[in-house]
Amino acid sequence: MIFSSKLIEDAVDQIAGLPGIGKKTALRLVFHLLKQDEKSTVALTDTLLKLRRDIVYCNQCHHISDTPTCNICNSNKRDRTLLCVVEDSQDVLAIENTAQYQGLYHVLGGVISPMEGVSPIDLHITSLLERVAKSEIKEVIFALSPTMEGDTTTFYLTKKLREHQIKISTIARGVPIGSELEYTDEITLGRSIIGRTTYE
Amino acid sequence: MIFSSKLIEDAVDQIAGLPGIGKKTALRLVFHLLKQDEKSTVALTDTLLKLRRDIVYCNQCHHISDTPTCNICNSNKRDRTLLCVVEDSQDVLAIENTAQYQGLYHVLGGVISPMEGVSPIDLHITSLLERVAKSEIKEVIFALSPTMEGDTTTFYLTKKLREHQIKISTIARGVPIGSELEYTDEITLGRSIIGRTTYE
Repeated sequence: MIFSSKLIEDAVDQIAGLPGIGKKTALRLVFHLLKQDEKSTVALTDTLLKLRRDIVYCNQCHHISDTPTCNICNSNKRDRTLLCVVEDSQDVLAIENTAQYQGLYHVLGGVISPMEGVSPIDLHITSLLERVAKSEIKEVIFALSPTMEGDTTTFYLTKKLREHQIKISTIARGVPIGSELEYTDEITLGRSIIGRTTYE
Repeated sequence: MIFSSKLIEDAVDQIAGLPGIGKKTALRLVFHLLKQDEKSTVALTDTLLKLRRDIVYCNQCHHISDTPTCNICNSNKRDRTLLCVVEDSQDVLAIENTAQYQGLYHVLGGVISPMEGVSPIDLHITSLLERVAKSEIKEVIFALSPTMEGDTTTFYLTKKLREHQIKISTIARGVPIGSELEYTDEITLGRSIIGRTTYE
């Protein structure tokens, strides 16, 4: 693409460097900013800088937070006997948006992956074991991705947690709601039969 | 959506305020920035601020520019007898990217639209007439949108330009290349028959 302006070219390159944004979209955004007041560009850039500079990680669960302890860990409305283990903060937000979970979280910061060079010491595992040992947690729910790395991590942590007198569970795997059964891959469909729910 | 962080919420709101970006994409971009070095957020925001603050409009053609006169108007490789009239700078970039045009441009800054309260005095028409009067332009090509407003503007300017001894043309309207004939709307198809090209 020809931009005939170094300023435009630089801005398009920067925006198109973000995931999922192509050069055409970037160019449209650049023209949008140029059509708006300088104020709105300043507001956008100030907010992004503030986000990047001021965000911290919760000293309890390692979730992104505005304060040293996040507002989930601080809340007195949460069930402190339940702990959901997730890979990253995005998973916390995804589960929060279901409005189906009222317990606490623990963000591992990744999953064990020898291929990517991620070993247990790179994850927030020590603090997980300490939390389980010291607090009133009665159940640990694993909500890691249904991949080999996720399963390996769940297996590893399950072994580590077994010495504590707690219930250990993992989120259900099965046919996604709203999907057509015939288009579900055979591994998922197989799992959904093995893990079937009995009407009682 | 629940974000459990004011910083994240503000950043998502700002990004989702851009055209064509929803809250989910905004959230993905926010997490991308958080995963990167602070340096990359600074680079992004600096570039956007610089763009918004430093961009100027060419004193010849009103195209966005880094310098008082844009590099198209300044170039000695362009055909100075051809002038293409467009609505905005995005149209200049679109035509430049076809690599089919070597003349100069004139950016009107809009089209005449009584509905939107845009009258001829709001557009760069005086400077267009002056350029045509004073320079070596032999042909003015109208490349405005094929809408009622675009057509009205072309008609208005054609009348104004008629006193000069120049050729006046408009870009071809017809069936878009690669499209299926049966799905082309009847107005476009009708125009393409009226404006048919004869093999000579």
